Order: sequence, then structure tokens, then C-alpha cells
Amino acid sequence: MPAVLAMLATLLLVAVPARAADWQSVSSPDGRLQIQFGIEEGRAWYRAAFKGRPILDKSLLGFRFKEQAPLLDGLAIDKVARISADSEWQQPWGEVRLVHDRYRGLRAELRETGGAQRHFAIEFRVYDDGFGFRYELPRDGGMDRFVIMDEATEFAFAQNYRAWWIPAYRDNYSEYEYARSALSALSVVQTPLTLEGDGVAMAVHEAALVDYASMNLRTAKDNGKTLKADLSPWSNGDRVRGRAGLKTPWRVVMVADDAARLAESTIILNLNEPSRIADTRWIRPEKYIGIFWAMHIGRLSWNSGPELGATTERTKSYIDWAAANGIPAVLVEGWNVGWDVPEWWKNGRSRFRQAEANPDFDMPAIAAYAKAKGVSLIGHHETGGQVRDYLGQMEQAFDYYDRHGVRAIKLGYVGTRLDETEWPDGQYAVESFQKVVEAAARHRIAIFPHEPVKDTGLRRTWPNLMSREGARGQEYNGGSPDTGNSPDHTSILPFTRLLSGPLDYTPGVFAFDYRARRPINRVPSTLAHQLALYLILYSPVQMAVDLPENYEGKPAFQFIRDVPTDWETSRVIAGAIGDYVAIARRDRHGPDWYLGAITNGEARTLRLPLAFLDRGRRYRAEIYADGPGADWRSNPEAVVIRAQEVTAETVLDVALAPGGGQAIRFRPL
Amino acid sequence: MPAVLAMLATLLLVAVPARAADWQSVSSPDGRLQIQFGIEEGRAWYRAAFKGRPILDKSLLGFRFKEQAPLLDGLAIDKVARISADSEWQQPWGEVRLVHDRYRGLRAELRETGGAQRHFAIEFRVYDDGFGFRYELPRDGGMDRFVIMDEATEFAFAQNYRAWWIPAYRDNYSEYEYARSALSALSVVQTPLTLEGDGVAMAVHEAALVDYASMNLRTAKDNGKTLKADLSPWSNGDRVRGRAGLKTPWRVVMVADDAARLAESTIILNLNEPSRIADTRWIRPEKYIGIFWAMHIGRLSWNSGPELGATTERTKSYIDWAAANGIPAVLVEGWNVGWDVPEWWKNGRSRFRQAEANPDFDMPAIAAYAKAKGVSLIGHHETGGQVRDYLGQMEQAFDYYDRHGVRAIKLGYVGTRLDETEWPDGQYAVESFQKVVEAAARHRIAIFPHEPVKDTGLRRTWPNLMSREGARGQEYNGGSPDTGNSPDHTSILPFTRLLSGPLDYTPGVFAFDYRARRPINRVPSTLAHQLALYLILYSPVQMAVDLPENYEGKPAFQFIRDVPTDWETSRVIAGAIGDYVAIARRDRHGPDWYLGAITNGEARTLRLPLAFLDRGRRYRAEIYADGPGADWRSNPEAVVIRAQEVTAETVLDVALAPGGGQAIRFRPL
Repeated sequence: MPAVLAMLATLLLVAVPARAADWQSVSSPDGRLQIQFGIEEGRAWYRAAFKGRPILDKSLLGFRFKEQAPLLDGLAIDKVARISADSEWQQPWGEVRLVHDRYRGLRAELRETGGAQRHFAIEFRVYDDGFGFRYELPRDGGMDRFVIMDEATEFAFAQNYRAWWIPAYRDNYSEYEYARSALSALSVVQTPLTLEGDGVAMAVHEAALVDYASMNLRTAKDNGKTLKADLSPWSNGDRVRGRAGLKTPWRVVMVADDAARLAESTIILNLNEPSRIADTRWIRPEKYIGIFWAMHIGRLSWNSGPELGATTERTKSYIDWAAANGIPAVLVEGWNVGWDVPEWWKNGRSRFRQAEANPDFDMPAIAAYAKAKGVSLIGHHETGGQVRDYLGQMEQAFDYYDRHGVRAIKLGYVGTRLDETEWPDGQYAVESFQKVVEAAARHRIAIFPHEPVKDTGLRRTWPNLMSREGARGQEYNGGSPDTGNSPDHTSILPFTRLLSGPLDYTPGVFAFDYRARRPINRVPSTLAHQLALYLILYSPVQMAVDLPENYEGKPAFQFIRDVPTDWETSRVIAGAIGDYVAIARRDRHGPDWYLGAITNGEARTLRLPLAFLDRGRRYRAEIYADGPGADWRSNPEAVVIRAQEVTAETVLDVALAPGGGQAIRFRPL
Repeated sequence: MPAVLAMLATLLLVAVPARAADWQSVSSPDGRLQIQFGIEEGRAWYRAAFKGRPILDKSLLGFRFKEQAPLLDGLAIDKVARISADSEWQQPWGEVRLVHDRYRGLRAELRETGGAQRHFAIEFRVYDDGFGFRYELPRDGGMDRFVIMDEATEFAFAQNYRAWWIPAYRDNYSEYEYARSALSALSVVQTPLTLEGDGVAMAVHEAALVDYASMNLRTAKDNGKTLKADLSPWSNGDRVRGRAGLKTPWRVVMVADDAARLAESTIILNLNEPSRIADTRWIRPEKYIGIFWAMHIGRLSWNSGPELGATTERTKSYIDWAAANGIPAVLVEGWNVGWDVPEWWKNGRSRFRQAEANPDFDMPAIAAYAKAKGVSLIGHHETGGQVRDYLGQMEQAFDYYDRHGVRAIKLGYVGTRLDETEWPDGQYAVESFQKVVEAAARHRIAIFPHEPVKDTGLRRTWPNLMSREGARGQEYNGGSPDTGNSPDHTSILPFTRLLSGPLDYTPGVFAFDYRARRPINRVPSTLAHQLALYLILYSPVQMAVDLPENYEGKPAFQFIRDVPTDWETSRVIAGAIGDYVAIARRDRHGPDWYLGAITNGEARTLRLPLAFLDRGRRYRAEIYADGPGADWRSNPEAVVIRAQEVTAETVLDVALAPGGGQAIRFRPL
């Protein structure tokens, strides 16, 4: 096998025409990325090269089923259609307004030469920033219904690249820190899986996961560089239960020259379907505060009793504070019945009554008060992973919020198995989650789930699916559980988790004094780092997570007031995975640019050219920087605010403390 | 639990005297490292601080047994003895000649207040470069024989440090690349486990593992920062089968200001017993070539037939070449009967006849020829993991080598389970391996096992146990298996695997032309990087791994001729784990210094002060550097050799290509 792979890897470079008969080739519009698809010895394969060097050697395609024969051997090509597209579409909200959708591709119709003579298809789309392919399963040969037991799809990487990964088959999706290792050290991991080295940066992920199981990646035993699809199973071992003509999600390999370009990729969005929501004006990118952090740091509780956070009085005071401080929305957690531990659920029935407020929470009065103050409420549904129960309450619960003018909901799926039996990323999770997204859309309600199914770009089709957690968020720094995130974490996320979509990380910690109560918790960040996160960790909904009183009298809060949550365009200016990252974004509704830069635990100075600014224009840069002696370990709150004039020619020296950051607003003069 | 831990972590800093009653404290000789041991609520705990900051919070000590009650609760202190030592001892060979053994410690004698009223002891030794502790299990209370089912020992780290690790419970020990992640991302890992951050570098390992199971480390479920001991089990689930008064191996936490200092630690050696071999003159540090690499790159075979490597003619030609090129020894693999695949063993009997040469290999003639040429032979035993079988052949096999003047053996344990049932790092592996070490010593034979039990410093007690592989060695770059190591790998090993002891990595690849035969194999290294490895990856036996003909006419081979394998002293001059490392060593038998520096896939220039050189002395530096355009991916063989005069005041700019390195010999003028 090694020898064969090797030979083909070489041929890919020199001998493509000679094998055109059984190998079809398609290149990206810019010609740098080349995919080949072919049949050899009755099996379907693909391989890929970038800048003339192999990145994927011969990689298998196919399926094994529960009842039917495998769709793997004795295959032949019926016909191959060439496709290409070049268009531009607009996001209702996003990190960029206009997305360029340009690719070349091929659609291969295949048939079995023996057995049931089934017909199926594989479509490849090759973009400048990566490629995707998906299967269209047979409608013939007794495939009206089938159970996929194994998707044979391989990713046979050409080098032992450096990999950034999270193990699969743990608890809630992705609520772990990333590990970095050689590709050969993986066992089974989640996607996105990010790879770099040998002059290329890549990520393996999927797009448009709506009625299938999540794809994990498992190292093939005999070769540390070959990964294969590993679909999260149902509790009985089935991988996917499908019907005739099923189209799989797109299997995507994002490809770029370096990590910074990788983080700008739009291929995942492009491989999703256009919006199914005609009028999206009710979907509002916005900042919010909330009754939330006080629970995580142990001051208040979700439970009823004296420490209950969600009281009418407190909620009104949060609404007052939001109105007075230019924050358009307030989130309330723990307002409804069912939070009292230990019993969130019993006999498969959740205790959560999603349309019933606790006695201390006067929803009608609060809703009226918010409306009068011009502040919107963000609702909260915690399902405790009791999906069946939640689907039963959902319509009524959305009606309830509808009646009270609540247009957005934070949605929780805390728990290691759905309905105590199913993986939170298997087909059951994917399909039931999709029901929630579509029901919410019918009710004109936006959702941002925590503990979600991983993001695969569905926000294009369902723009009410605004953001997700699905990561170790800020809450881990607050004491839930009690291990804070590492100083590397926020410098890894833009190149890994964020490749899949927006992240509701909840930045904005200003006061670290909760450590008096939870001394072993640490936010491994300075205050300026927290400000920079509004640029670094993209989300259309951004929380100012700290307690309102902790923002009082803090001039640095001005940045949180100023920073937009919707963007005309975005540029990753600098980045080294796990070390540092700098991102500039332009306000979608004005001429101002914003820049955020962060480092990990190491202090460093970044030299950043401001070439993104309009040429010949002068700007006033309002700079929020780490103050003298700032250090996440000992002096996280030291911040200095200063202004200077800059142009597109300016190269800015951005000095970052250990765990530090810098946030800048550029206003044209 | 978090709150309690936190409170104690604080007390550790301020309130020690107030709790002297139940907490005994002991500090390192330099006072920077402080350990506390105590009993609270009847349980035994320890904690540690470095430079006044907690590094380990309250960590549990104790055991659970199969028959007897746990040794965990209802404990009280009988008496505490203070101990301290300050001595110096000499290694027969090593990276440093003299080792300073200086510590302060305490030995606590404990008893159960209830139950069987058993008595046992825990001893702590605190060095400037870390601390160790071990248990002495009861002789009373029906503990004449017992089975340990769980060692409760915890390591409750105070921060979510960055960790470098290899998963436990895979195949052969440590033959994986290291992963880097936050401590909170681990599941169960091997030791050494290296940690860094918050101004400290640490490693958890063990010393003097002779009659116990290897200690792995598992993350405690409820707290990502707390690890506990996880002993590799017997196939029936027993962890350790012990007798009254058993002393466990030392549990060691190496502690230093940074990774470079960590890599200089001698605590593992100091916690082993003095040499049991009186006259060690027959144990020779040396360089060797061998009939080995040609098999890995697919030119020759271990099997009989036309491609057999170990023939009389070829071995004599290797002996000639060694004699002519100043290499004192020649290794031969595949010389004996039993190599023919597929069947290395059958019905638990190995096919390997360790004292029977294959028909093409005339041992008496070869031995006489080697003797006449003044070249020593290095023998080879491959057990295929058939330990019982090997122990049965061992005496006869050592006699055979003895008769033919073979004083050193490379020892292989290829296979995922010993005797197809037991973990290669469980008590069975440890104890059977110890039998081999001691038998070899009786026969005055040195061994360097590959696929070994992990190194825990036993070379101090048994200096014939010279080196081990127990890592992804160079062989992985040659095609076995076909995934090469990553460019980061050699910059990680000095701070991880090498903390446990010498590594027989087999450096010295000069010709990369084998890629014509195995194109997907890569040595992720330049030629100068290969030279530097003789300094970076310490071993008293160092192979020049490439084919002799590939060294012909290569001026750079002079460095391999020159570089010693035995050192007066060693200094880690610079290092960042996974990025770069530079190490200087002084010849044990002369005034010359040598320096090796390597980088990972990134090009960089290191500024290295030569302060290690004798003050006021002038040296001629013979520099082997990456040549113009050197790059591991495209131009690995470009090397330039130049000389310059330097002194201890010189600061050298060491430019390293991608995957590059530099090797320097300093001769006094």
C-alpha cells in the first residue's frame, strides 16, 4: 500500500494526462487547488494537490449498509458532468456582507457493474479556499430505505502535518480545549480538524448537516496519516437511517496558504443552501447583558430560594442599566420553573416548564417594562438534554415568548446523552435540533444554542440560528466546572472551532474580584484581551458578560458600547495558532474599522500594517491597550486608553502583556 | 471541593505555622520548593508550592486492595522523622560525570486508628529540582500478601498548565508523537507528563520501577486539573501483586523555572539505588553502525532469501568500514534463525532461536574477523514480545554471545502484548524485564532495549542498561510504519521522553535518496539537524544510522567521527518545547566542548552566548551549519562547514533552516 500511494502521489504531479481515461481532474478557479476523482479496480477514489504538491493521496469513497450490499466495489462511471458557478450573495448579518460563491466542479454518475446494479452520484466542488464533495445515494436496487453502518470516506493526507484537535465521543460537543500534535498521534477526533505544515493550512469539516450523523475522523490503523469518516452512531449502532436519494452533508477540506487565510474561508457557507427565511429584518445582531455570570461565579443561583437570580426586581434593574448604557438586550436565565436541583428530570420527563415563570418572576410586567425602556428580552430554554420532552413543549413555549415580544432565545442542552440514550451529535440530535430551528423560524424567534450540534454553516439557510457555544466558553473561567480555560485557548479558537461558525463565548470580564470567592478560578486574560475578544471571536450576538456594577466607572466599557456586532468585511491580519491573532473588521453600517489583537500566556509585540484602512484617509485610532505591569496572573485589570492619528501606511506596534490584548476603533477624520 | 482546595492553597502561602499540628512542612535545600504532608479527616494528603506560589493543591495518598480494607481512611501519624543528605556520586558513563545528591525530607510513620490497625510509611525527598515520595506498605494486619487494585495517589495541580503528553494504553510504550494541550484536555496519559506555564516547568514521572506496575495518569472526572495514578493492570485486572513491606517506586514531580532547567534535572537518577555492578569498565559508551537502516528503507530484509541483510560478507564489509572510519562497533539485525514472516511465533513459542545463526551468517568467523579488526560486535535479540520463551533461551543466548566476545545487545520487544496477554508496561513486563537486565549483568553484557518498559533511572543501579528506544525513533522516518515523524518531534523529546533517560534514536541520516523508493517517507530534518541530534538526544550508545556508502566522500561525516558519547557535563543553553533546543556538552575525556542546536519546521536564528566555555581561553569552533537554501522539504542535504575563533564572551548567531540544525565542536587553541 505505501508503495502504491507513493507512486500515485508522484503521478499526480507529472502524469495526469496519461491517466485521464480513468482519472477526472478539476481545478479551483485560481488553478492552485487540483482534485482528481477516479475509479480504480472498481473502487472510487479522489486525491488532491495544492500549489503542485500532493496534500491528499488516493482516498477511498463509499458506504457499507446494514441490509444491502456495500456500495464500494465493482463501480464504473456512467457519465461525468462539468459544473462551474460564479455568483455573489448577501448575508442578512455576518462577518462579511457579500460572499463570493465561485467554484468549478464535477458530478460523476456511477453504477455498480454487478450485484444490484445500483446507480448513485458524487459531486465535487472546488473553490479557491478548499473543496467539498457529497454523495447522492441510490434510488434503485432496493435502497428505498437503508441504514448506513459505515461511511468509507477517507482523507489520506500526504504529510504528517501538525494537527489541532478535540477527541470525539466525549460529553457535550467540543467543550474541551484543543490538543496539538502530529497527525499521526490522533485516535478519533471531532471536526473541524485543523492541519498545518509543509506550506499549507487545512481543515477537515462538513457543511449542511441537517438529516445525517455528525462526521468524526478516525485514524486508519495501518497509516497514521490516513483518516476515515466515523459517523456518530445511534444507541443501537446504526450510523444513519436514510431514504432513497439521500444527499449526504458536504465533506469539506478547507485549504489555504496559512492559518490566517484559513480563518477567512467562506466555503462552509457557500456549500449551504440559500436562506429559507424570506424576511429576515426581525433577526437582530446585538449586544446583551444578562442574569448569568453571577450564577457562574457563585453569587446567585438558577434555583428558587434566597439566591435566585431571575427576580422581577433584578431583571428590571438590568433593563434600566442596559437602557442607560446603550446595550440593546437583556438575557435572563433561571426565570422559569424546573431549575431546582438535584432533579432536572425524572422518568424521561423534564422538570422544566418552558412557558411557566417562577413565582418571583412577573413575565408580563417585565415584558412591558422592557418594551417601555426600548430594551429587548432574550429568553432562555434549558432542556437538560430531554429532547423529546422539549419538542413537546416547544410550540407552546415559543407562543409564550411570542406573546411577550421575546425575539431571541438562548437554548441549553446540558447533559451527556439526549433523552439519556443518544449521542449529542448523532442523527437523532441533528434531526431533532433541526425541528427546533425551523419551529423557531416559524415563530420569528432567533436562537443561540449552547451544548449544540456542531455548526456546519446552517445559518445561511436558517439565519435565525445566529450563534452557538459548542466550545469551552467563558463560563469555564467562572467556575463551572472549576477549571479555567488555558491562556492558549482564545488564540486557538479562531483557527479551529470558529471555522465552523459564530461562537457565543460571552466575553467582557472586567472585574476579577470573584476570585475572592472562587480563588482557583482564573480568567487567563487581561481586561484589554477581553475587549479584543469582541473582534477575535465572531458572533452576531455578543454578551457583555460581567455584572453591570463591575462596568460602572470603567472608561474601557466605552469600547463595548462602541463595538458593532455586524460587519461589512473582516480581515485576519496576523495569526499563529495557539500563540497570537489579530483581526480587523469594518462596521457594516458605517466607515469605522475595528481591530482586536490577543496573545496567549506569552508577552509579545505584533507589528501590524493598517493597509486595510481606506487609502489617503486619516483616522483617529482609539486604542485600548494593556497597562503598565499588566499580566493575567497578577494584574489583569491594568488598561490604558489613548488615541493617535493613523493612515493605511501606518505600521502599528501592538504590545501585548502575558495573556494580554489590544482593541482599537478607527474613526475617519 | 473547589472552595476547600482554594482555601488550602491560600493557607499554604500564609498560614503554615498555624496548622503545624497536622501539617508537616519540608523545603528544598535552596528553599524555593516547599512540600507539606498532613492528615485531615483521617486521610493523608500532600501539597506543594514553588517560589511561594501553589503548584499542587491538596492531593490524596493511599491504596485500595483486592482482599484487604483500603489504606485510605482513619489514618494517624505515629511519628515523623526528618532526613537530609548532601553527597556527590560519579556515573560510570553519562551526560554528567558527577551528580550532586542533595535533599531534605521527611519519613512519616502512619497507622490506622481503626480496622486492622495497620502501620505503613510515606517518605518525601525534596530536591532543588523536584520532589519524590514513596510508600512502604504494611508488614502487619494480614498484609503478608496483597493485590493493589488502585493506587489513590493524586496530583492536584493548581493551574490549568500547558501539558505535553502521550495517551496511555496504546501499543508499544511511547511510540507515538506527543500532544500539547491544556491540562484539562487530558484523559489518561503516560509519564513523563510535562507541564509548563505560570512561571514554572514541571514533569510527573516515577523513579526505580523494578517490581511494580508502570504509573499512568488519569484525569479525575470532576476537576480537569487533578490527575491520579492509574497503574497498568494485569490481564485479570490486578494492578500490583505485592508482599509485606513493599516499597513502591518513587512518585516524582520534577520542578524548574523553565523547560531548559527541567531538561537538566538529575532527580530521577538520585532516587535510584547505587550501582549493583562493582566493575563497570566493560560497559563501553560508543558509536556504532549497523545492518539495520537498509531494512527499514526497504533495500534489505530481516528474512532469509536474496534480500537478507545479515550475511557474513556484508557484516565483514561493515566491520572493514567501521575500522577504517573510526566507528568502534557494528550492530547486526536478522542474523539469527526465526525472522521469516509471517510467523514470528506459534502456540506461545517464539520462532526466534537466539543462539542459532542463519546459514548465511558465520558467527565464529565474523567474531574472529571483528576482533582482528578491533571492532566490537553488537548483538541483537528480537523477542517478538514472547517473554516467557525469551527468558527460557536467555542464559544460553547470553553464553553464546559471551563466547563470541559480544558485550552489548540491542533487545527488541515488538508486539502489542507480552505473551499475547499482558500490557508491555504492567508488573509482568517490569519484573520479567528486570530479570533480563540482571542476567545480562551477570554475563557482563550491556543492553539497549527497543519497545522497552519506560526508563525510570535504573541505569544508576544497573549501568549495563545503557539506553532505550521507547519513543518514535528514526526508524519511523524510514518506513516502519510509513508515516515519518513530524518536524516538531525532535524539539519535543528533550523536554519529555528524555526526562526519563537516554534515547537510542539512531540519528545520522545523510542521504535522503531512499525517497526514490519510499517517496512518502520523509526525514523531517536537514543533514546539519541530523548531526546536532548527537548532542540533543543523549545516549551513551549512538548509531550512525545511514548506509556506509552514504557517508563516503561526505566531509560532514567528520563530526560523527569526532562527537563523543560520554560527557563530563551538559548544559541546556536554550529551549522552547516543540520549537527549538540547543545543548552544549563537554567531552568526559578531553577539554573540547560540543554544541547542537535544532529547530522544528520553522526557520529561526538563535543567539547563543558561549558562557559555558572556559573563561579567558580561546577556542576554534568547527561549525556544521545548514547550507544556502537548506530546507527539510526540498533541500535537506545542503550543509556548510566553516571554522571561527570564539571565547566565553562570544554570542553566536545560530541560523537554522526549516527543519534545520547546527553542530559545533569547540577545540581550545
